[in-house]
Amino acid sequence: MDKIARIDMGAKGGPKVTIEPVGDYAGLGGRATTSLMVSKEVNPNCHPLGAENKLVIAPGMLSGTTGSMTGRLSVGCKSPLTGTIKESNAGGQAAQVLARVGYAAVVLEGKPEGDDLYKIIINGEGIKVEVDNSLKLMDNYPVIEKLRKQYGDKVAYMSIGSAGERLMLGASIACTDPELRPTRHCGRGGVGAVMGSKRVKAIIIDDAGFKHRTPKDPEKYRDANRKFVEGLRKHPVTGEGLPAYGTNVLTNVLNEAGGYPTHNFKSGVFKGGANISGEAQAELEIKRGGLATHGCHRGCVIQCSGIFNDKDGNYVTKQPEYETVWSHGGHCGIDDLDTIARLDYMDDNFGLDTIEMGVTIGVAMDAGLAEFGDCEAAIKLMEEVGKGTPLGRVLGCGAEITGKVFGVEKVPVVKSQAIPAYDPRPIQGIGVTYATSTMGADHTAGYAIATNILKVGGDVDPLKTEGQVELSRNLQIATASIDATGMCLFIAFAIMDQPETFQAMLDMLNAFYGTDLDADGVVALGQKILSAEREFNKAAGFTKAHDRLPRFFYTDPIAPHNQTFSVTDEELDEVFNW
Amino acid sequence: MDKIARIDMGAKGGPKVTIEPVGDYAGLGGRATTSLMVSKEVNPNCHPLGAENKLVIAPGMLSGTTGSMTGRLSVGCKSPLTGTIKESNAGGQAAQVLARVGYAAVVLEGKPEGDDLYKIIINGEGIKVEVDNSLKLMDNYPVIEKLRKQYGDKVAYMSIGSAGERLMLGASIACTDPELRPTRHCGRGGVGAVMGSKRVKAIIIDDAGFKHRTPKDPEKYRDANRKFVEGLRKHPVTGEGLPAYGTNVLTNVLNEAGGYPTHNFKSGVFKGGANISGEAQAELEIKRGGLATHGCHRGCVIQCSGIFNDKDGNYVTKQPEYETVWSHGGHCGIDDLDTIARLDYMDDNFGLDTIEMGVTIGVAMDAGLAEFGDCEAAIKLMEEVGKGTPLGRVLGCGAEITGKVFGVEKVPVVKSQAIPAYDPRPIQGIGVTYATSTMGADHTAGYAIATNILKVGGDVDPLKTEGQVELSRNLQIATASIDATGMCLFIAFAIMDQPETFQAMLDMLNAFYGTDLDADGVVALGQKILSAEREFNKAAGFTKAHDRLPRFFYTDPIAPHNQTFSVTDEELDEVFNW
Repeated sequence: MDKIARIDMGAKGGPKVTIEPVGDYAGLGGRATTSLMVSKEVNPNCHPLGAENKLVIAPGMLSGTTGSMTGRLSVGCKSPLTGTIKESNAGGQAAQVLARVGYAAVVLEGKPEGDDLYKIIINGEGIKVEVDNSLKLMDNYPVIEKLRKQYGDKVAYMSIGSAGERLMLGASIACTDPELRPTRHCGRGGVGAVMGSKRVKAIIIDDAGFKHRTPKDPEKYRDANRKFVEGLRKHPVTGEGLPAYGTNVLTNVLNEAGGYPTHNFKSGVFKGGANISGEAQAELEIKRGGLATHGCHRGCVIQCSGIFNDKDGNYVTKQPEYETVWSHGGHCGIDDLDTIARLDYMDDNFGLDTIEMGVTIGVAMDAGLAEFGDCEAAIKLMEEVGKGTPLGRVLGCGAEITGKVFGVEKVPVVKSQAIPAYDPRPIQGIGVTYATSTMGADHTAGYAIATNILKVGGDVDPLKTEGQVELSRNLQIATASIDATGMCLFIAFAIMDQPETFQAMLDMLNAFYGTDLDADGVVALGQKILSAEREFNKAAGFTKAHDRLPRFFYTDPIAPHNQTFSVTDEELDEVFNW
Repeated sequence: MDKIARIDMGAKGGPKVTIEPVGDYAGLGGRATTSLMVSKEVNPNCHPLGAENKLVIAPGMLSGTTGSMTGRLSVGCKSPLTGTIKESNAGGQAAQVLARVGYAAVVLEGKPEGDDLYKIIINGEGIKVEVDNSLKLMDNYPVIEKLRKQYGDKVAYMSIGSAGERLMLGASIACTDPELRPTRHCGRGGVGAVMGSKRVKAIIIDDAGFKHRTPKDPEKYRDANRKFVEGLRKHPVTGEGLPAYGTNVLTNVLNEAGGYPTHNFKSGVFKGGANISGEAQAELEIKRGGLATHGCHRGCVIQCSGIFNDKDGNYVTKQPEYETVWSHGGHCGIDDLDTIARLDYMDDNFGLDTIEMGVTIGVAMDAGLAEFGDCEAAIKLMEEVGKGTPLGRVLGCGAEITGKVFGVEKVPVVKSQAIPAYDPRPIQGIGVTYATSTMGADHTAGYAIATNILKVGGDVDPLKTEGQVELSRNLQIATASIDATGMCLFIAFAIMDQPETFQAMLDMLNAFYGTDLDADGVVALGQKILSAEREFNKAAGFTKAHDRLPRFFYTDPIAPHNQTFSVTDEELDEVFNW
């Protein structure tokens, strides 16, 4: 990762590739690279789909090494959905492969004239940008199927579906998993529309001839990694719950806690919850010859992914994540796993954020476009998105636009991004994260559920306001750092509870880079990333008035706890005071 | 105007009317009343279509008197289009009638449950709120036709069309003109959607039994009014240009100045301009038995309105205003007056802001939904709005939403409101107003065209940046005051050029209220209004980053002057430093 590739898609005479030394970004990765570069180089007032925006693709600090859990890829830009800076990350193979080929970042710049569509081929010989109009308006599964015939199975693919080409604000960027399926998505914030605006359909990354990246101290790295893996295997969340049931293990947990928003945030409990729980899902997957335990990238030891087959044993989609099951399920009053799996497949295929789309369909149901619980209607709405009809384009632009177009008052978004699967009224800590995150509503930005509900890293009562600001602050700082390492955020469960696992992670970083990073250094890195993001957002016009939840969370109590969100504005304004 | 009516549409058991003394709002009117009340009483973070928003309807300080030009009605709320505070005003009869019945303001509060539709009847006996579901989804012309059968022709009507009921963000509130046509609209900012959210379809105002409001010094008032009228008749704009050709007298002027944006702001000159000019329009109107000179309310001496008939002499619509002719015409590459008149009628009938809709159709054309210049296609797009199809709802929500849904980069809006008929690159002064107005892009908020182009009130070179901030500042202050008086903004031409006409206006105010308002007092009132509006917007999350034009005005020069907008951010930030 000693170089950065810049691809000027708007260069006269066609796209132009420039390779430069990694420079200031040496030793950084993931969200550190994307957010520092975007905040330094992108005009905060630019149009997100214009030539001035840049799409920065960066593997994590430890991606491409033999270290476990290091396969996260970060994508950064100004978000067309939120108007804020955006970092969206995904698993799959792309980060490992890109890192091994040696790129700390690939930066898509400018915007071509005309409507040619391009693909980018990255390998040991360099970077080629080629017109390939045969891919126009194809969706992710067929795109990958077509590209595999040309580029084979030993490469990683990134692609956008029709949604990204159509510049839908909910569009994602797909990364292929080890089985070459386009199932791991940089989902949030419309990053797929930014890739689409630059007319890049696919990126093919081939690390043939490259080996794993070499640590400064290989032995120490190996030892640290072994301890790190032991720690992950030991912790009940990463060693038991996630491998057995995937992220969807949370459905029953959140439903029991009364923090599972249903029917567009009207109740905190879903009667059909058990039907779509991780337990039910895993049982069904195994029964149908799918997989309940699977890694989304090589080197994963948690294995929270899976394969969902239909009743005849045919592949439908990867195991839908908890937030997907929630958004398309409980949020829409749907308790049928087959419907949810079908919608998950459509999201992946069209190239859309599953959270944004599920929440949007729930908002559309609230607008009267369909009945809550109507599986067929939900699928039909999604089909509109794939066809790119006017209705489909509205839905593909997410919950806020859909709410405006259809006059819905209750639209669960912060900074225009859909609120995920945890109600902030009975779980006040996650509300602090939604409100204040630099990314718009984003549970991963500071996953207070860990401490509020799962009692990982301490115990902060979810129903009370005390301690939530500090909790969210600490989590947001830690998360920004983890998002830089390239490690999957799920390591947080183990490193929050087990000091020796946290130390093992530090040892991996230090062994690899020859540094002496300690806990304070992790905090400093996280703060540096968040500060750069906050500065960008401020220049783009965001103020503390935007660090708030939608009004209805303050005015409408939700059953069963009958609480409103009651962290005060003044408290929220303290999140970034460190 | 000694009382205020509050109508709680959300009261348990049905809408509840409360009459209270005018109190703090005594001696105020129009925008002073609406903006001070909204900024005091409405939560800046409320949902604009929720129960917390209020719709304040206020006649001007001199409305309902024998004074000329005093028929403007202000409507204020938090805007669902812009998210800012909003004052939208219109001519027609409502202001005069409401003032005579004695209401300084009628305030619609709360929001009913269920989907009953209401009408409000205001007369000497008080205020009644009645369910009338027979009006559901009717458009303005048929609504008024129906209500006239019940309430007659000696009343003033306010109403919303299907667009307001459907909560479209471009929805207006119609006021009937002296001939009982729903042609005078509080157009901007989606105020019709706020009325729709409160489920109020129509307001019937009957001043039977009431006389003109009596000045403290009737003789002085009469004298001042006479001098005021003389001044208006003497000035070339208000005495000649506007009466002869209406506001559309500007088409040729702006086209010649290279400041007439066409084809979604791609050129500052429209080849077909002469075909849709005020001169051509007046000739056609007269030829077809319409009217080129007409007053939109009784007591108007400028008479810039008119009647547009079809080739068979049948009424089509009122004389389309300059900004309407531009938005549906030049902006869309359309140079056919019959098409423009038809679109103007559809706007009025569905209840939509003509500026927002015309700009939106141009943006839709840029997205490829129709060809520029295609008259039939433009009409078909508007028909979608009337039908409330998904596409129609998108368009009815205005240019910004349409741009997002269809992936258009070049969307001419400020604070989500469409930029009107004057390009800010060759006319830098109006760009300062667009950028900084508390209302979003709004030419009337500080009509720099007067001084930049018409050389009224001085001469500031439109192509240079010098003097534009001061010009816009002074105009915004003066406009806020004029919008409080209930006087038509077009008096500004005469009072800016003729000190004795300005004095006559002051004398009218002072004779009526027994005050001693001078020029400084007018400035102080304007500043007070703007400050209240700015405070509201700040609390709603608006910062100086929002006081900017869209990026393309800074990056894309426009022919024929090949200029970009070049007033600096620092200069823009000085507009409200007084």
